[in-house]
Amino acid sequence: MNKAIVYTGGEVAAKAGLARGAAGTLAALTTSEKNDALLAMADALVVHEQALIEANAEDLARGRENGTPSSLLDRLALDSSRIHAMAEGLRQIALLPDPVGDTLEVLDRPNGLHIEKIRVPLGVIGIIYEARPNVTVDAAGLCLKTGNAVVLRGGSSALSSNRAIVGILHEALAATVMPPAALQLIEDPNRSSVDEMLKLNGLLDVIIPRGGASLIQNVVQNATVPVIETGAGICHTYLDAQADPAMAEAISLNAKVQRPSVCNAMETLLVHRSFAREHLPSLAESFRRSGVELRGCEETLALVPWAVQATDKDYATEYNDYILNVRIVGSTEEAMAHIARYGTMHSECIVTGNAEEAAKFQQGVDAAAVFHNASTRFTDGFEFGFGAEIGISTQKLHARGPMGLPALTSTKYKIYGTGQIRG
Amino acid sequence: MNKAIVYTGGEVAAKAGLARGAAGTLAALTTSEKNDALLAMADALVVHEQALIEANAEDLARGRENGTPSSLLDRLALDSSRIHAMAEGLRQIALLPDPVGDTLEVLDRPNGLHIEKIRVPLGVIGIIYEARPNVTVDAAGLCLKTGNAVVLRGGSSALSSNRAIVGILHEALAATVMPPAALQLIEDPNRSSVDEMLKLNGLLDVIIPRGGASLIQNVVQNATVPVIETGAGICHTYLDAQADPAMAEAISLNAKVQRPSVCNAMETLLVHRSFAREHLPSLAESFRRSGVELRGCEETLALVPWAVQATDKDYATEYNDYILNVRIVGSTEEAMAHIARYGTMHSECIVTGNAEEAAKFQQGVDAAAVFHNASTRFTDGFEFGFGAEIGISTQKLHARGPMGLPALTSTKYKIYGTGQIRG
Repeated sequence: MNKAIVYTGGEVAAKAGLARGAAGTLAALTTSEKNDALLAMADALVVHEQALIEANAEDLARGRENGTPSSLLDRLALDSSRIHAMAEGLRQIALLPDPVGDTLEVLDRPNGLHIEKIRVPLGVIGIIYEARPNVTVDAAGLCLKTGNAVVLRGGSSALSSNRAIVGILHEALAATVMPPAALQLIEDPNRSSVDEMLKLNGLLDVIIPRGGASLIQNVVQNATVPVIETGAGICHTYLDAQADPAMAEAISLNAKVQRPSVCNAMETLLVHRSFAREHLPSLAESFRRSGVELRGCEETLALVPWAVQATDKDYATEYNDYILNVRIVGSTEEAMAHIARYGTMHSECIVTGNAEEAAKFQQGVDAAAVFHNASTRFTDGFEFGFGAEIGISTQKLHARGPMGLPALTSTKYKIYGTGQIRG
Repeated sequence: MNKAIVYTGGEVAAKAGLARGAAGTLAALTTSEKNDALLAMADALVVHEQALIEANAEDLARGRENGTPSSLLDRLALDSSRIHAMAEGLRQIALLPDPVGDTLEVLDRPNGLHIEKIRVPLGVIGIIYEARPNVTVDAAGLCLKTGNAVVLRGGSSALSSNRAIVGILHEALAATVMPPAALQLIEDPNRSSVDEMLKLNGLLDVIIPRGGASLIQNVVQNATVPVIETGAGICHTYLDAQADPAMAEAISLNAKVQRPSVCNAMETLLVHRSFAREHLPSLAESFRRSGVELRGCEETLALVPWAVQATDKDYATEYNDYILNVRIVGSTEEAMAHIARYGTMHSECIVTGNAEEAAKFQQGVDAAAVFHNASTRFTDGFEFGFGAEIGISTQKLHARGPMGLPALTSTKYKIYGTGQIRG
């Protein structure tokens, strides 16, 4: 992109202020008003497909000039089919039930007070993310559907695309009752604009980082606005002594190689000693055939001579790649201790035919999702049936695991009295 | 207290580590095991009443030496009746239903996966608070009941009392199956021990500050551990044109003077112009008779000549005292705009006989608790029927409003498969 970009001071606070100003209007919209806006947004993306592709070409050209790796360029690229997929995503969100306004609790007190706990929007959500322009559409759709205003701060490498997308969505919103100000894009590509967002207490109600570990850690370490931490996944699969060998192989291979780059993929395989003696050599062979490099403990190396020695650092690494740690343990307790030490409380699995061991593992492992006899790859909002996902929370407050629409809401107590005072 | 206190380095991290180590054991305890521990704690406080009073006398003596105001000394003081009340509080917590283990959601997926969302403890909770020693007992009871380990950091002015309390509770726990390590007291009176707690990600799952605005702001501004913000309350009561005059007087007086020092007391009275003309002079007189100083807008001063002029800063102040701002407005919308500008999203009230105005107010005001025709003083865990309260959340994540036991829990998905892999 060759156009000069002029940033006037205060972009971040000003746009967050505009979003805050729109939040009240947004919170009062009906479900059908919000859905109409989402459908108008979807239509507009398709109508302006060509302009979007041209804006995206600017990002791609700049990326190539800067020597961006082809895998990142691929994530950045938009074509007709991806644009239609983004539009379809908005249409899907429009079809989902609206959690806002749901009554979650009713309390009738002896003094006659009638108390209702109602779902309300969070208010203004800040989303900080990386290169993929589809996140711009997806995050906007999920936030607006739940009556939240949203301040987006995408990666600078996708700035032209994001600006084009938000321009198109603003134009679409202008023809609806949803205020375009509810959707804001921070255009300042400097890191300082992120730093500023992280401190906007009073204007932002929550920040959700979506991206790699360093982006997330920067947000967690520096935000004074409440954060929902997402993403980091050092996931384990434990093959118990009584695991079915065929199931153990199917689940562990799926957890590693079906899509190694994602947070719910397995990074370390824990194997009970007796299972390992009989089955690890052939299982290792299957991983090798799938192109997976194995890093093992001493006992693993004795059974799988071609594996390399795993270090303590390896056990603490989210590879997101065709690399797998293998460690042999003597019991479910030992597997659980390893997970407690190295896990990120994302997704953990035990494969066993023994119900007691499974129950012990599912009770004792502290993670968002604990599987018995199924691949960790199922930790996903769509796979859970939520119809959408804003991310996978790895913290324990507010939301844990895949976050669907209700994770983007708060609550409010409405109390109905007839003149009650406190004695 | 005259004993020399020796602090070895690393007290905070070491104690948080011990609490973390106990969290797994604690999470697996049954409800009756936890209740037995709470009852043992209650009994021990009563048995060791004399020792507690002696330790408390050290704090009081030091406080007097330091010129601590008598209102603070009163909050610090323990006598037999207060010790029995603390013990009774623990017994009440033991009687409450245990939320841990509750199944919140069951999802059966087309691929045969059976998914259960289960309540689990948060893990390790840090509580940072001020002088009142009863918070030590109360917070410990609420956290342990919900299977959480707890790291307490009370005010240094109550250190002798807190150390005595925790010593007694540890001795009581040693005779139960609950590990004493689950309850930790930070004894280092320096501010640096608070700063250290705020950054203990991985050891602490959440920090809950309980105390005044500056304590809470320090935690919010500096913590990297997730925080549940509590407490600050600039609460408003709006008397609509169609308010019943007797009800308006009863509710607004109660909201101000029944206990002015607490967060759910009213700080600003908003009055519709037509109601004010007829009723504000006599209402103001009632406040005056109750010892309340009024600070009013220009229109208020015209009706209540003895009131002083309110400033913008007054509207933004939580007095917690016998002082009240009064502002005359022309509509519910104007009242709502004032609240949006100066409120702290705690508790707000409309008094009106007009259902439409009430509905507009309850929908449009963004606060944890929005009352129609009842005093804001009812925002309270006991008044809501929760049987306990760890604080009143004024943030929108995780918990909002009075926090009972469920606010001290997180969730976990247990997923039951039969070999499912992702395609």
